[in-house]
Amino acid sequence: MTALLPSAVVYESWGQRVVFGSGTARADVAAQVAGLGATRVLLIAAERERALAEDVCKDVPVVATFSAVRPHVPAEVAEAVRSAAREHAADLLLSIGGGSTTGTAKAAALTTGLPILAVPTTYAGSEATPVWGLTEDGHKRTGVDPKVLPRVVVYDATLMLSLPTRLSVTSGLNALAHCVDAWWAPRHNPISSALAVEGVRSLASSLPRIVADGQDVAARRDILFGTYLGAVAFAGAGSGLHHKVCHVLGGAYDLEHAALHSVVLPHVAGLNLPAAPDAARHLGAALDDGTDPFDALLDLYATLDPPRSLHDLGLAEQELDRATDLVMAQVPDTNPRRVTHNAMRQLLGRAHRGDTPVLVPLTDV
Amino acid sequence: MTALLPSAVVYESWGQRVVFGSGTARADVAAQVAGLGATRVLLIAAERERALAEDVCKDVPVVATFSAVRPHVPAEVAEAVRSAAREHAADLLLSIGGGSTTGTAKAAALTTGLPILAVPTTYAGSEATPVWGLTEDGHKRTGVDPKVLPRVVVYDATLMLSLPTRLSVTSGLNALAHCVDAWWAPRHNPISSALAVEGVRSLASSLPRIVADGQDVAARRDILFGTYLGAVAFAGAGSGLHHKVCHVLGGAYDLEHAALHSVVLPHVAGLNLPAAPDAARHLGAALDDGTDPFDALLDLYATLDPPRSLHDLGLAEQELDRATDLVMAQVPDTNPRRVTHNAMRQLLGRAHRGDTPVLVPLTDV
Repeated sequence: MTALLPSAVVYESWGQRVVFGSGTARADVAAQVAGLGATRVLLIAAERERALAEDVCKDVPVVATFSAVRPHVPAEVAEAVRSAAREHAADLLLSIGGGSTTGTAKAAALTTGLPILAVPTTYAGSEATPVWGLTEDGHKRTGVDPKVLPRVVVYDATLMLSLPTRLSVTSGLNALAHCVDAWWAPRHNPISSALAVEGVRSLASSLPRIVADGQDVAARRDILFGTYLGAVAFAGAGSGLHHKVCHVLGGAYDLEHAALHSVVLPHVAGLNLPAAPDAARHLGAALDDGTDPFDALLDLYATLDPPRSLHDLGLAEQELDRATDLVMAQVPDTNPRRVTHNAMRQLLGRAHRGDTPVLVPLTDV
Repeated sequence: MTALLPSAVVYESWGQRVVFGSGTARADVAAQVAGLGATRVLLIAAERERALAEDVCKDVPVVATFSAVRPHVPAEVAEAVRSAAREHAADLLLSIGGGSTTGTAKAAALTTGLPILAVPTTYAGSEATPVWGLTEDGHKRTGVDPKVLPRVVVYDATLMLSLPTRLSVTSGLNALAHCVDAWWAPRHNPISSALAVEGVRSLASSLPRIVADGQDVAARRDILFGTYLGAVAFAGAGSGLHHKVCHVLGGAYDLEHAALHSVVLPHVAGLNLPAAPDAARHLGAALDDGTDPFDALLDLYATLDPPRSLHDLGLAEQELDRATDLVMAQVPDTNPRRVTHNAMRQLLGRAHRGDTPVLVPLTDV
């Protein structure tokens, strides 16, 4: 019997309350705002979610609304939301929306120290991590600060009912990628890995159900649960190869975030799984369908039918060599197999063409 | 496919850093004390662990040592440790010891707000929960306060090498009970349950190894990992039937804490498992030996050979009726099966005699 725990592990857990409900956002948000003692709430919600957000906020003392949300939190958006918080003497930041909205609230919390209550409307997972990101002059800086972790998250499965199926699938696979990448990320550890197994189990069982019926509230709830677990696992383990590839490609070529994760994940899994027996065991336990874990992942993709090609997301073929160079500079030292320039170029080629992902034998370099 | 997540769940996670190492306590403690910016440390360690504690503290600015530790933290001990912290203007409480020592530090943190750095020397798990306890006039009050959760825990497997085998086993089964009880405790939830599965897996694989060889450091490390997971699961899910039984019997009859847990656990499991299919599935996944989960638990007991009888712990047979009455007043409403006075009396009778634990059919009341 071998030891389960590596010889030295440092694990950081974060204090947060999460409330999972269905059709209860209005009441849950009001109760949590009161619990935090807030009386001057700055609502942060994108224009397209204003109606939904105002509905959720009916019993909340909102003093102002900030709606100039943009992806990757440009510096001027960060400055604007901080000014709004100061000007209105806000004592709580209430973000209602997807990852960009949560990110905007985090930018404000980072300098003001104000607490955040987050109500997610996608499966981005940012609400359960202390990671912030800011973009200036086309360069995205990220960092970790406990101040930006929302104190409370209110998940309401019914808020996701209007999320279109394709976006539900890609956003859900983004959550799945948080789980899978946690098994080989730089700070991978048995605690994050256990949470990720449960996250994959939850997502793999629920995503096919919303493809069949987008109004399946129980399935939406299970996706949120998997989202939360994936985000906690990601926060604990850090960014693995998959997230480095997506971060680089997304930043350099402005590709659609969740769709990019959907395309890349099975290709990175095909590269790493042959060198990561623990990850293969975790994936097998989570997908639990009696076949090879990688085949089970491809079966899930066949059922969900997400985008498969970087070409379709708008990446030009002539960029692949440069993209490979950019990715190679970011490959984690701790990746379970050495990644050669050739192997990454082949991987990006397959992902670009939308080829069926393959397990890359350890003899291939 | 059924939903994994119950309809409404509130889950509270707690912020804490845990460091797992082997033979690294002295360096890890010094680094973490410095990281917390502490310069006036009150060391809390029982007299019998003073040598070990002084060794661990060689590079720490200790201004005083409090050693008057007693089980269940009597009110006068709480007052004395608080006075010591004030008198020496301590800025950090460093507890090195088992559950009673951690509990003494928590009593001081509760009123002073001072941070705790905990270095456990048993598998009690108190270091990873925000639960405090104080005893006054023979009555133990408990409560939950984030202030008493140690900011940092330094686990060092080599500190456990001198723990005798019998105490290692009973203390390890106390940790196992945190995991198992989490599957049916009042706030049981899929997050705590997943952590508990990994905890049982870790404990069940490692406890037999220290029975075979008490100096097996890797096994000691895995027990600590299971201890941590069990404590986090317990903090998330609350006290289930098992902990209520042990709390009542321990308080009323002053029975040895860890041994009491060892005796009671399989009897409560035998009562609840027939009514708790999720718990049975979790236990099966964690013990994973292809047999019935309850049989696998009994097999583990056969290997570990812990105390089996309340009689041997000093409980008189004529107390069993009164003990049943006391326990019945504490049975959680949320227990997966209704517990009748007769069923509890039978259970305590079997535990008293040291009978082989049995699965109690749902038709038995």
